[in-house]
Amino acid sequence: MNLRIPGPTPVPPEVAQAGAADMINHRGPEFAAMMNRTTAGVKHVYQTQHDVMTLSASGTGAMEAAVVNLVEPDEHVLVISIGEFGDRFINLVKTYGGRCTELKFEQGLAADMNKVEATLKAHPDIKTVLVTHNETSTGVTQPILPALAQYVHSIDGLLIVDAISSLSSVPVKTDEWDLDVVLSGSQKGWMTAPGLAFVSMSDRAWAKADRNKTPRFYFDLRRHQQSAATGQTPWTPAVSVWFQLDRALQIMLAEGIENIFARHRRLGRMTRDGVRAMGLTLLASEGVESDTVTAIRLPEGMDGGKLLNVAMENFHTVFAGGQGSLRGKIIRFGHLGYVNDKDIVAGLDALRGSLAKLGYKG
Amino acid sequence: MNLRIPGPTPVPPEVAQAGAADMINHRGPEFAAMMNRTTAGVKHVYQTQHDVMTLSASGTGAMEAAVVNLVEPDEHVLVISIGEFGDRFINLVKTYGGRCTELKFEQGLAADMNKVEATLKAHPDIKTVLVTHNETSTGVTQPILPALAQYVHSIDGLLIVDAISSLSSVPVKTDEWDLDVVLSGSQKGWMTAPGLAFVSMSDRAWAKADRNKTPRFYFDLRRHQQSAATGQTPWTPAVSVWFQLDRALQIMLAEGIENIFARHRRLGRMTRDGVRAMGLTLLASEGVESDTVTAIRLPEGMDGGKLLNVAMENFHTVFAGGQGSLRGKIIRFGHLGYVNDKDIVAGLDALRGSLAKLGYKG
Repeated sequence: MNLRIPGPTPVPPEVAQAGAADMINHRGPEFAAMMNRTTAGVKHVYQTQHDVMTLSASGTGAMEAAVVNLVEPDEHVLVISIGEFGDRFINLVKTYGGRCTELKFEQGLAADMNKVEATLKAHPDIKTVLVTHNETSTGVTQPILPALAQYVHSIDGLLIVDAISSLSSVPVKTDEWDLDVVLSGSQKGWMTAPGLAFVSMSDRAWAKADRNKTPRFYFDLRRHQQSAATGQTPWTPAVSVWFQLDRALQIMLAEGIENIFARHRRLGRMTRDGVRAMGLTLLASEGVESDTVTAIRLPEGMDGGKLLNVAMENFHTVFAGGQGSLRGKIIRFGHLGYVNDKDIVAGLDALRGSLAKLGYKG
Repeated sequence: MNLRIPGPTPVPPEVAQAGAADMINHRGPEFAAMMNRTTAGVKHVYQTQHDVMTLSASGTGAMEAAVVNLVEPDEHVLVISIGEFGDRFINLVKTYGGRCTELKFEQGLAADMNKVEATLKAHPDIKTVLVTHNETSTGVTQPILPALAQYVHSIDGLLIVDAISSLSSVPVKTDEWDLDVVLSGSQKGWMTAPGLAFVSMSDRAWAKADRNKTPRFYFDLRRHQQSAATGQTPWTPAVSVWFQLDRALQIMLAEGIENIFARHRRLGRMTRDGVRAMGLTLLASEGVESDTVTAIRLPEGMDGGKLLNVAMENFHTVFAGGQGSLRGKIIRFGHLGYVNDKDIVAGLDALRGSLAKLGYKG
């Protein structure tokens, strides 16, 4: 199967195999050495000196961690949403008792920095902003992070970034851009099975977490930070996934992050060019297309569910469908992590063949 | 290494290898088929017809799920604690805004049912009781579950059982004993890497969860139940660990749960006999010793940390130390999951040899 979804992504054979190593004591010296090694590697990819905690959970667990550690009870926050995962932040904030101003943009667009500034000016009590860097549901990467961080800090605020499906594939310069809290997940560009998620915390973020009274336990980041100082996690970690991460980071550091970013840029462009050559259009507007996932509008009247089945059964290729209101209307083509030119060519061939089988003339 | 800790436990080679299978779409038909298969297998081992949800988290995540779904804001509950993991329930209840009556028993003892009844009679407003079945920190298995469930239901209450380190190794008859909520974790008797945790829910438990307003999202069990109906999880699951669970359940069902229980009874007795033959005593009082982990009191003046190091360096055997106030005073010898007679003999040899190296004459 050519797994062309935006996560979980294919795992290199040697990484998969690393996960089958003999189980170890999660309170022993081997685990501590591995944890120190992976944390250093993850920080390198994050381009940060901040603490980065590794949680045994999915990306949504990391989003919950950000909200329960950093949004105070009844605090008024801004969520900038450009799709499903932005909406998930809104949902989380409301669930845990924050008040939410929702700044939503049409599917396929990135956020407009002028509207963000206007919203923050209209609500001077807002000091916490949550934003999705790469919206997996629409195939859009937001270019505003550096400007947004600068503006948020100019009003003494805190910026929380969901970079789950971008960080490790495209540049996220945590320190240079001055991002307070940045989230990612093992099953995306990290070439590792799902089960681990990452959260970086700036000093500003720690200060806020310490005064925040929102209840938390499993996702209490201070507990994770304190345990990390002794090479442990507060709760039993997903050890076999961690073995995989350890091996995957070796491969990533050997390739070099700039080369990884260049590869994703190239394969993203290749995917978009191939899709456009079929006469199809992208959901993402020009200039903000994601280099990790492409959302493709289906020809009028074509059943997206049927296309996914044809691609799977006839071309051994798995694409993802649309989520929410986009179900049946788009398919999503993942090109992140352990992926090379051949995978993209095969994916494009499968898409072309599936469309033809369903009568599309192009 | 002979990993003789009470979890994570050794993973059979074919189970470890199953985790290295090609990654799949967590929203596709292969995952749905696997999820339906593992849920049926887990329910068989749970001896239940109740819903059992599989969460991507550690056992502590399952404990948090039980508390946030079933303890109402400001509700008065009883936690029966016989050690560290009972205390963790107390911590969780207090964190999430419940009021807690703590009924604690001395380390090594099981709970006294008369005292439990007296406490519940003294606090007629308590309708939720949380209890540890097998206390991993002291090596005690509570024999009171059937009587406790009967009593709790006679007062129209709900019983939540942490069976993380017992269920799948020793009998936990969820339906016959009428247990409302039962927790377990993949890294214990299930012969699988850490990363998945299980929660069963009776109809009473669902009714209570539905009226409970405690905020929850990642661990919201209704969301997990609803997704399970379509062969999915609400958030990306730890797929590679799930592959392992799928294979491990095949092995467990082939052995048969009664045979698994008999093996643990035999190996538990063998461990205790061997330890006593060295002139050492157990922390667990007679009649309530756990068949999954044995807590061994160290000879007066012996440094527990040193013993662990000697066992590891000289005998390639990993024991666990004591937790909290028991640190340095006991070691814990795990005998659950993928374990046979030879592992126990080797573990006992390692313990004997390590004690001798530290000057113990026995």
